[in-house]
Amino acid sequence: MEKDEIRRHDSFQSFDEICSIAEEKQVDFLLLGGDLFHENKPSRSTLVKAIEILRRHCLNDQPVQFQVVSDQTVNFQNAFGHVNYEDPHFNVGLPVFSIHGNHDDPAGVDNLSAVDILSACNLVNYFGKMVLGGSGGSTAVALYGLGNIRDERLNRMFQTPHAVQWMRPEPQEGCEVSDWFNILVLHQNRVKMNAKNAINERFLPRFLDFIVWGHEHECLIDPQEVPGMGFHITQPGSSVATSLIDGESKPKHGNQYRPNKIPLTSVRPFEYTEVVLKDEPDIDPNDQNSILEHLDK
Amino acid sequence: MEKDEIRRHDSFQSFDEICSIAEEKQVDFLLLGGDLFHENKPSRSTLVKAIEILRRHCLNDQPVQFQVVSDQTVNFQNAFGHVNYEDPHFNVGLPVFSIHGNHDDPAGVDNLSAVDILSACNLVNYFGKMVLGGSGGSTAVALYGLGNIRDERLNRMFQTPHAVQWMRPEPQEGCEVSDWFNILVLHQNRVKMNAKNAINERFLPRFLDFIVWGHEHECLIDPQEVPGMGFHITQPGSSVATSLIDGESKPKHGNQYRPNKIPLTSVRPFEYTEVVLKDEPDIDPNDQNSILEHLDK
Repeated sequence: MEKDEIRRHDSFQSFDEICSIAEEKQVDFLLLGGDLFHENKPSRSTLVKAIEILRRHCLNDQPVQFQVVSDQTVNFQNAFGHVNYEDPHFNVGLPVFSIHGNHDDPAGVDNLSAVDILSACNLVNYFGKMVLGGSGGSTAVALYGLGNIRDERLNRMFQTPHAVQWMRPEPQEGCEVSDWFNILVLHQNRVKMNAKNAINERFLPRFLDFIVWGHEHECLIDPQEVPGMGFHITQPGSSVATSLIDGESKPKHGNQYRPNKIPLTSVRPFEYTEVVLKDEPDIDPNDQNSILEHLDK
Repeated sequence: MEKDEIRRHDSFQSFDEICSIAEEKQVDFLLLGGDLFHENKPSRSTLVKAIEILRRHCLNDQPVQFQVVSDQTVNFQNAFGHVNYEDPHFNVGLPVFSIHGNHDDPAGVDNLSAVDILSACNLVNYFGKMVLGGSGGSTAVALYGLGNIRDERLNRMFQTPHAVQWMRPEPQEGCEVSDWFNILVLHQNRVKMNAKNAINERFLPRFLDFIVWGHEHECLIDPQEVPGMGFHITQPGSSVATSLIDGESKPKHGNQYRPNKIPLTSVRPFEYTEVVLKDEPDIDPNDQNSILEHLDK
């Protein structure tokens, strides 16, 4: 909403608050679930502000405890082929890992995402096509990222034998494969009614421990156990309300797996009241402009 | 020409060659005369490639000998307010200073140029509204940058008393004002016939020593003395041919003030043949596509 006089700063303030908290808490890394950008071609102004926020919080002298043990040239497919904090010419103290969402998905002749610009600047580690293995101190973490693809396509793939392969980490000294903590970040619709247009969590493999579910806007930050699957799912929700639905009116939180909810104070609150629109079949419930226009009428 | 199958890499190869030479020669700084980008809103692909080239050549362990002695917060109006090689979180070994041209001039609600993105990434020092004073070892250099504005407007300003003020450096210890070496980089049409649509070099102040004239595409790299004015002008020309005019067919060079011409080997050569077009009044001689279309006919 960068053209809205009142709300144009909201998403930047939230993102800045999130990065500030991450920096202050000295987290191991910040994991973004896609849609950092709402527009596939963000404006110059938005791009510059995002770069400024990342530069301000991610570059510092804090030592990074997290070591990538998988093949970085495979994990990070930019021109440099390594995790950003190992570049000798940058002082990265807060690593950010991100997949793309459906809004900032790769496009154009070189199939680049807006996130690729942040990756070229060495401010974000853009992944999401390959498994990324890392270890932080005594904990071995396998970080799986799946950038957004069409739900129908992913569903079809999950139902086709051998179409989806989950790679497991190579054995490390003193660490069995079963000792790894397996995190998946994905950016898809989460199944509700129509199974074709959403992903059923039961398609995901049982060896996963923790799933960060992007795309869904409602903040359901408390990890929910999926019965019989052995993993928990957290759904952080969008950092700011981008559509006028009930789920968006819930408080926005940061999270730690041993739940440590950090309310974001910069988020503009709103209350949700159901509005029944008569004879307006072409309203898009996710497009607030179309709703507001009709409310005006 | 990023959509041209054959020539899409040309400008990147030239820019890469220029940066490689600058890095290899360990120059004090690289001064760009505007129009790094041909499109006001460069594509993602172009932006990523430009970032990659700058990152590859400008970040290294080379010590920077050039010290900015003027007010950096005034010179560099990004969110950080300092010259890029003084940022403690980046290893900048090759400083780049740039003004904007008419193609990549500031626009939009925040009046940002595509060069602002490179400035936010800390890869380029974008200036051009204020005098920038610097000193390199025993030489004091005043670097004046004037980003492109409409020729008519600048002409009017030059002819209005007190509308243009040239600030001189504060006295430095052991360096009289008259000892400073004064460089101006600007990006305007250079006067030929119609004085209104071009800038007459005689409007420029006599205290200047060396002028880097951007915008003009022909490479006239040998510094030409302007009789009676006491300064020399170099016109590097565009690094690649962007229009099919005679001037563009001349060899492209890099330069040092004590002339040290370095031919760019990556530039695609072409010969210029005058073409007389009959009854085609709406051809734009700077638009090669329109010319090529008519040649096909």
